[in-house]
Amino acid sequence: MTESSLPESAIPSVPPRILLGPGPSMANPRVLQAMMQPMIGYLDPDFVLIMQEVSDLLKRVFKTEDAATFALSGTGTAGMQAGISSLLEPGDTVIMCVYGFFCERMVDMAERVGANVVPLRADWGQPFPPKMLQEALEKHGDVKLVTAIHAETSTGINQPLTKLSKLAKKHDALFMVDAVTSLGGNPMEFDEWGIDYCYSATQKCLGTPPGLSPVALSPKALQSIKDRKTKPASWYLDLALNANYWGFDRVYHHTAPVSMILALREGLRVVLEEGLDDRYARHEKNAQALRAGLAALNLDLVAPDGYRLPQITPVWVPHGVDDATVRTVLLREHSIEIGGGLGAFAGKAWRIGLMGDSSRPEYVLAVLSALEGILPRVGFEVAIGAAVAAASEALAED
Amino acid sequence: MTESSLPESAIPSVPPRILLGPGPSMANPRVLQAMMQPMIGYLDPDFVLIMQEVSDLLKRVFKTEDAATFALSGTGTAGMQAGISSLLEPGDTVIMCVYGFFCERMVDMAERVGANVVPLRADWGQPFPPKMLQEALEKHGDVKLVTAIHAETSTGINQPLTKLSKLAKKHDALFMVDAVTSLGGNPMEFDEWGIDYCYSATQKCLGTPPGLSPVALSPKALQSIKDRKTKPASWYLDLALNANYWGFDRVYHHTAPVSMILALREGLRVVLEEGLDDRYARHEKNAQALRAGLAALNLDLVAPDGYRLPQITPVWVPHGVDDATVRTVLLREHSIEIGGGLGAFAGKAWRIGLMGDSSRPEYVLAVLSALEGILPRVGFEVAIGAAVAAASEALAED
Repeated sequence: MTESSLPESAIPSVPPRILLGPGPSMANPRVLQAMMQPMIGYLDPDFVLIMQEVSDLLKRVFKTEDAATFALSGTGTAGMQAGISSLLEPGDTVIMCVYGFFCERMVDMAERVGANVVPLRADWGQPFPPKMLQEALEKHGDVKLVTAIHAETSTGINQPLTKLSKLAKKHDALFMVDAVTSLGGNPMEFDEWGIDYCYSATQKCLGTPPGLSPVALSPKALQSIKDRKTKPASWYLDLALNANYWGFDRVYHHTAPVSMILALREGLRVVLEEGLDDRYARHEKNAQALRAGLAALNLDLVAPDGYRLPQITPVWVPHGVDDATVRTVLLREHSIEIGGGLGAFAGKAWRIGLMGDSSRPEYVLAVLSALEGILPRVGFEVAIGAAVAAASEALAED
Repeated sequence: MTESSLPESAIPSVPPRILLGPGPSMANPRVLQAMMQPMIGYLDPDFVLIMQEVSDLLKRVFKTEDAATFALSGTGTAGMQAGISSLLEPGDTVIMCVYGFFCERMVDMAERVGANVVPLRADWGQPFPPKMLQEALEKHGDVKLVTAIHAETSTGINQPLTKLSKLAKKHDALFMVDAVTSLGGNPMEFDEWGIDYCYSATQKCLGTPPGLSPVALSPKALQSIKDRKTKPASWYLDLALNANYWGFDRVYHHTAPVSMILALREGLRVVLEEGLDDRYARHEKNAQALRAGLAALNLDLVAPDGYRLPQITPVWVPHGVDDATVRTVLLREHSIEIGGGLGAFAGKAWRIGLMGDSSRPEYVLAVLSALEGILPRVGFEVAIGAAVAAASEALAED
């Protein structure tokens, strides 16, 4: 194999897609442009100021005054891993509220670090009942950590967190929340809701490419890591070491992913310039239009009314229709990506995401009109024009 | 705090720097441009082809036919963590060749996973003596893993690997190599040298921003992970799960960092278009010019002749000169970054990097002429013009 035989790329440039899956969503153009900036050293005084700015912007988005806020150098899953590895020691009891695919992943992680894992398995596609947590906390004496997922991307459930948080506090347990899909898309109140550790991802509702996990860590959670008897098994994802790296100490830990941090800074500025409340309202309005259109197509939503996320809408695949065929035609003929089901919902649900820069009226209409054309071809009759009309009506409302 | 109070950035755009530290090095312009491409889903058939291409390009750069090659979604340190977490189970014996700062980090990681760690501490700034490894292997019966660092960035040592590898093989141990600073800068022969796991980073000699860890994993190493009695403590950095994600199975693991993967693809293409041998020769030639200039300044190199890396040149800070002052003036007045010493070498050594796109004759002359101007101001007399003349002469040689 000589070097001169370097083959041409099969895909020399990325094709333009309308990304309406579970992420990545479409990146904001300002964010892409921010990544064109030249490299800079991670000890450069100017870069230290940039990291400080990212930390400050994250405080505004997480809504916290006291938490340490920074970005882990990995994807959202790294945020999950960091929390499990850092907040749990072997033998510690953790109660995990389980109501979807990503909750189960968290259980796997906790078992790997040797924790005493108590998974509370509730129905997928329903909000988790606080009573289950209450009973488990009363049964198990010394609980170190309670975990929940704010926006279960596999089911589309918007999980209320305040009751769970209060129960954890009452039993002196830390409360860890997965906000991978929620941050920037629907309200997050880190301080007010009493969260101890929250992690997210850049590629869902923050309009930024995947690659970083923004996190917030309460003083109490940080102290609990410092008080550990054993060091976390992961040095790379040790939250205390990462907090030190981003904090005033600036203790060298690893080479910061410069371009991604510049991207995140611009993404957070775009979010805050739009305004958090306006952004949440935009997500909700476009989601309502999508739901109206899906109803007109006679498609049923997975999540019940009142607990639906605006940024991801799982919908049941109609009986007799092949899940993958529809998604393939959507991609090939319309350049639209939607997601399939995960775990127990594989082949049974589609997931339509309207996240961050992908939450736009024109994309709602694009996916509905595409489905109107495709569904009759796979044996599911629809009233032509009804979905787009219903969505347009919802979009026209004040 | 109202959202309208969003303050202006202290550093709205990254200042241009000449990056001659231990990394990040300067990014190739084609690579920065590659990151401007729009987002694409990680299950998109076109993106699957792009990941396959990255894997193929990595095979050429690592020089391997059989290894699984892919990029971990974290920085070079994630590659170290993944190896330690995946190749070692609690109680496994690992012999670690220790001759610099990053070797010590590896020891810390191995202790955290509960391995039986045998650190062989040799002199910093000297190549590691194979005899030490031989004796340790004979003494300890059942050794699972032997570790070494190809290019110790803290000392500038180019560590010969073949003897260490043969010793590990003879005792049926896996051989893990840190190539964070070496890959793309000096010869790497994964198959020929008998390496089982090798990890690198994008921001040293590959001309790509930091954020990914390219790795190669031999079939034997992969099998050893599958044969584990316990699962690796890190789910995120489980090498077998990541290999599955990049392999033919495409088992969902996490959302691939799209922009960074596009950057790495372009970076690897630039490397292979230049040609590996030509690239190594360029690094060596510019390093020789730098060394000639430093000698003319009467500065002493840390690494001995014959074991010097071309991409990082640690040099002793002259007696009576304040390390940080010189680096600060270099940055403020010349926009040139060089590195300070790490660990035992903090305050005692500077580290001048000529990595990837930062390895250019004009930067060699820029840093030497800047030092010529600065050193006399901090009390260290130099013969004006001598360093630049010596370097220019070396650069003019065929």
